[in-house]
This record gives sequence, structure tokens and C-alpha cells, in this order.
Amino acid sequence: MTNTVTVMGLGLMGTALAEAFLKDGRTTTVWNRTAAKADHLAAKGAARAATAGDAITASPLVVLCLSVNDNVREVLTAAGDTLAGRTIVNLTNGTPRQARELAELVTARGGEYVDGGIMAVPPMISQPEALILYSGSRRAFDAHKEQLGSLGAARYVGADAGLAALYDLGLLTAMYGMFQGYYQAVALLRTEGVKAAEFTPMMQSWVTAMMAGLPEQAAQIDSGDYLTDISSLANNAAGYPNLIEAAREQGVSTELLLPLRDLLDRSVAEGHGADGVARLVELLGAPAA
Amino acid sequence: MTNTVTVMGLGLMGTALAEAFLKDGRTTTVWNRTAAKADHLAAKGAARAATAGDAITASPLVVLCLSVNDNVREVLTAAGDTLAGRTIVNLTNGTPRQARELAELVTARGGEYVDGGIMAVPPMISQPEALILYSGSRRAFDAHKEQLGSLGAARYVGADAGLAALYDLGLLTAMYGMFQGYYQAVALLRTEGVKAAEFTPMMQSWVTAMMAGLPEQAAQIDSGDYLTDISSLANNAAGYPNLIEAAREQGVSTELLLPLRDLLDRSVAEGHGADGVARLVELLGAPAA
Ligand SMILES: NC(=O)c1ccc[n+]([C@@H]2O[C@H](COP(=O)([O-])OP(=O)(O)OC[C@H]3O[C@@H](n4cnc5c(N)ncnc54)[C@H](OP(=O)(O)O)[C@@H]3O)[C@@H](O)[C@H]2O)c1
Ligand SMILES: NC(=O)c1ccc[n+]([C@@H]2O[C@H](COP(=O)([O-])OP(=O)(O)OC[C@H]3O[C@@H](n4cnc5c(N)ncnc54)[C@H](OP(=O)(O)O)[C@@H]3O)[C@@H](O)[C@H]2O)c1
Repeated sequence: MTNTVTVMGLGLMGTALAEAFLKDGRTTTVWNRTAAKADHLAAKGAARAATAGDAITASPLVVLCLSVNDNVREVLTAAGDTLAGRTIVNLTNGTPRQARELAELVTARGGEYVDGGIMAVPPMISQPEALILYSGSRRAFDAHKEQLGSLGAARYVGADAGLAALYDLGLLTAMYGMFQGYYQAVALLRTEGVKAAEFTPMMQSWVTAMMAGLPEQAAQIDSGDYLTDISSLANNAAGYPNLIEAAREQGVSTELLLPLRDLLDRSVAEGHGADGVARLVELLGAPAA
Repeated sequence: MTNTVTVMGLGLMGTALAEAFLKDGRTTTVWNRTAAKADHLAAKGAARAATAGDAITASPLVVLCLSVNDNVREVLTAAGDTLAGRTIVNLTNGTPRQARELAELVTARGGEYVDGGIMAVPPMISQPEALILYSGSRRAFDAHKEQLGSLGAARYVGADAGLAALYDLGLLTAMYGMFQGYYQAVALLRTEGVKAAEFTPMMQSWVTAMMAGLPEQAAQIDSGDYLTDISSLANNAAGYPNLIEAAREQGVSTELLLPLRDLLDRSVAEGHGADGVARLVELLGAPAA
């Protein structure tokens, strides 16, 4: 019974999840809105569920992976009473609020809810490099930890169902920042014929070196003491316009560069010029909870 | 004679440069607008030049490190004929256009010009981890390569004097992208009490993993063939709004997040939804030179 699992949603990611369970010899029931997507998994030994309700009643552990959480809400609402006694693990990407609302919906119907964030692409699933963050019912997570281990490295981040989404979106935010910096830099360099392949290793080692300094910045953020003698906001605000001017000179869009300039300028105008750049965290947000 | 060098500008960085030359036993002449900043170096064995002109005539190799290139232009213009036969290595941060204009100014007066970009902070100077990019006169660079080696790892990137600044600003652009993603993520996570120190190691390994995929993206950019079966612009455009929505839900500013959303949406609207995210380079800029 504990080796029995259902996967709902057989897109690129859901298919990889179902395959990972099958690979570990688990009894796997699958369901997809468009039934044909289950053919290939059925051929590999998965049981097909005819309806979403059948899929949910088939296993104590039900993993969902749909496009967006509106789809999850729709499917779970239609499934009605079948949720009682089930553990719903929702690996659909969404926001903390959405996760919390789904947790309420499921627990109100007698189920247990665990939300998850997949920090991996489908080909990585089932490998230890695939990090999957979980939050919500600790009891339900612990009860199914072994099965979830088929998907990748499982990491529980807290009882608030919204936390996995919070970490997930935080990591994606950091990734998009790195990507946008890289694209902007490559766009600048290729105006003079420098190939992306030539620039990329240089960028990787430089950004890796700069990332090595983040724990020091983290200590500043956590302590609220931002004084620095290495790289002040004033110096950064003074040098940053060169990036924008160079982009203009070379005919490259500045749209991705401008918001950080405004933030740097504002930090100096507010009197924080002598502080380190990590202080920008304070300008971005609500104070620490 | 070749072991003789002048450093002009004794701020945080210029002082570190002069110290590195002294450490390697080079005959070092120093000059700073505010003369008192030379005291400490004079005590370590540096010769003081009374005027900028004296500083330039003192050595065949003259390294400048002032706040901005307007200062460099001012100093070199005032120095007049003393530039003849000298090699000016300008390590002041600036744009490619500024570097090219300074190259003209110096060569018009019979000097040779090398521009440079320091990818390091002062405490790193003289260590091999301090990467310094050079461009401009290859002859002058080769003639002084050994002395410049005192400062860090020297890398010549091309005869166009603007190239070192181009690489420098490209690397800074990539760094700021990574930083802004990190600050945004930390601002999001701490709304729920997650400490920066807890999140940072996770962010470092995740972004390192994502950076490992950049050579593949570089190949797409260099070939112009962006088709992908892993992470399409359409999928990214569909998921990115979750980042913005979560920031709003948690009371964090979205100002740094919005421009990339617009770019993603535009790429899909222009019919590139099936392409990989690296195609954003095309939307940012002038086509490859
Ligand atoms: N692919 C990745 O690299 C990756 C990485 C990390 C996280 N994720 C997340 O994983 C989730 C799934 O991604 P994916 O790549 O598998 O997407 P996908 O290939 O587009 O699959 C989407 C799935 O959602 C189902 N679906 C959509 N609307 C539905 C509805 N109203 N009712 C029932 N089912 C519905 C689809 O069913 P039909 O077949 O009937 O359309 C399909 O099974 C997303 O939240 C994504 O952000 C993906
Ligand atoms: N510090 C870093 O981490 C770092 C890293 C990489 C690159 N850089 C670049 O290195 C350059 C110098 O940075 P820094 O940190 O040394 O700055 P800094 O400590 O502020 O020093 C600025 C220097 O410029 C001189 N200066 C300013 N205006 C002048 C003028 N009109 N005429 C003559 N001299 C003038 C100053 O002389 P006074 O003493 O008379 O004011 C001082 O020597 C900048 O372009 C910076 O972007 C710095």
C-alpha cells in the first residue's frame, strides 16, 4: 500500500515523475486530462485511471503536476469526497498564497496537503541532483518521504504550505537575475564581434568568484549592519551609469539595466552611500518577519 | 629603465597598484592630486613626483587609476608634450568610447595607449586571482607585460582600445544581474523569516548549476539556432508572472522583476515561444557585428 502512488498530469514533468516511480518498481496509477498521454506510461506498466476521482482513490499518495494551480484547484474541487485520507503532493509551480489556499481546500475535505517546488528539468528527475522542496504537513511528508525520494533529493522546508513555493520562486528569481545579466552582457559584447562562447567561461569564473562573497553579504543582511570598507553603495552608484552608457553607445537596449540604477541612486539619496550593496535588500522589501 | 613605473591616482585602487609594484622591487614614482595620499607610499620607498608632468616623464610606463575618465582626460591634456614616447596604461573604469578617445589623445601626442579593466578589489591586487583585462597597443602591452604582471593576471583582449572596457562592463553587468536576483530573492524569503544565511548556500548551488548550462546557450546564441526541447520562452513567459505575483503577495517591490517580464512577453508575441530563453539576446541588441 505504501508502495502505491498516483501521478496526475502527464505533461513533460508529470511524465518524468511517473517514470521515476515506475523505475523504482512502485505501483503507479496515472491520469491526464488528455488520456492519450498515458499510453506510453501504460506500456511501461502504469495503471490508467479513467477519472480524476479514480486516480485519487487508487493510492494513499497522489502527486499532481499540472500547468498552473488554477488547474489543480479545478481538478481537486471536482474530485470532491475522494480526498479524505489521501496525501496530496502538489508539484505544480505557483505562489505561496496559492499553496496555502490549496492546503485549506484539501484539509477541509479530510486530506493532507504537501506543496512542492521542483528545482530541476525533466531529464534530471530521479537523480540526486534534482532538488525538490516540500512544505506543509510534516506528518504526511514523513510518511511518504521514501516514495518521494524516487523523484530526486527531497528537502522539507517547513509546515507553512507556502514555504516550498517561496523558496522555489526565490531560487528562480536568483536564476533569472543571473540569466538577464548574462544576456545583457552577451548582447553588449557581440556588438564588437566577441562570441558568446568566448565570453561565457570568463563570465562563469567571474560570477562564481562574486558569488563566493555572498555569505558575507548574508551576514550583513541578517545583522542589519551594512557598513563596509570594500564596495560601498556610493561607489557602485557612481560606476553603474557606465554600464548604461556603454549599452547606449553600442546600440544595446538598457531596459534591463535601469531599475537597479534607480535603486542604487535612491539608496545614496536616502543617506546609505557608505553602506555595502547588500543594503538594497532593505529598499526592496517589507522588513524581516 | 624597464623596471621603472609611475602610478598616478592614489585612491583605494591606485594605492594597491603602487604597493604591488613596490613589493616586486620596481622603481616606483607616484603622484596624486591630493599630495598627502603619497606619504605612506613614500615611506615604503616610492619616489614622489611634484607635478603630473614630472610623474609622466619619470617612467616609460605610466599607470593611471582615477575616479572617472574625465579626470584622466584632464590630467593628460594638462601634461601636454610629456606623453611622447610614454606608454599610458589607464586602469580607470569607463566605457569603450571613452577609452577610444583617450587612445586618440595619447597617440596624437606621440605616446602609446593601453586601456585596462580591473576585475578585482584592492586587497586582491598582486594576487593571481586579480584578473586585469587590457586592450589597445599590442606592442606597448607586450613591452610592459612583465611589469603589469605585478598587479595580477594580465589578459590582453584586442587592439581596439575599447575592448577591455567592453569586457569589463560585460562582466560587471553579469555580476549586477546575479546580485539583483539575489537581493530580490532574499527580500522575498525574509518576509517569512527565512534568514539570508540559510538561503544563501542553496542559492549558490542552484545558480552554479544553472550557470553550468550557459555554454549550451552560448552555442545557440553564436549559431542563431535557438530551438530547444527543455525550457522554451513560452514556458518561461507563462511561469515568470508567479515571481511577480509572489513578490506582491509578500509585500516586496517588483521594480527589478518587471523589465524581464516585458521582454519574455515580447519574445512570445513576436512568435519565438518555441525557442530557448537565450533568444532574449536578440531582443536586447544590435545584431552581432
Ligand atoms: N518542464 C520543466 O522544466 C519544469 C521544471 C520545474 C517545474 N515545472 C512545473 O511543472 C508543472 C508542469 O510542467 P510541464 O513542463 O509538465 O508542463 P506541460 O508539459 O505543459 O504539461 C501541463 C500538464 O497540465 C495539464 N493541464 C493543464 N490544464 C489542465 C486542466 N485545466 N485540467 C487538468 N489538467 C490540465 C496538461 O494536461 P493536457 O495534456 O490535457 O493538456 C498537462 O498534463 C508546471 O507548473 C511547471 O512550472 C516544470
Ligand atoms: N576600489 C575598487 O574596488 C575598484 C575595483 C575595480 C576598479 N576600480 C576603479 O578604479 C578607479 C579608482 O577607484 P578607487 O577605488 O581608487 O577610487 P577612490 O579611492 O575614490 O580614488 C579616486 C582617485 O581619483 C583621483 N581623482 C579624482 N578626481 C581627480 C581629478 N580631477 N584629477 C586628478 N585626480 C583625481 C583622486 O585623487 P584625490 O585623492 O586628490 O581625490 C583619487 O586618487 C575607478 O575608476 C574605479 O571604478 C575600483
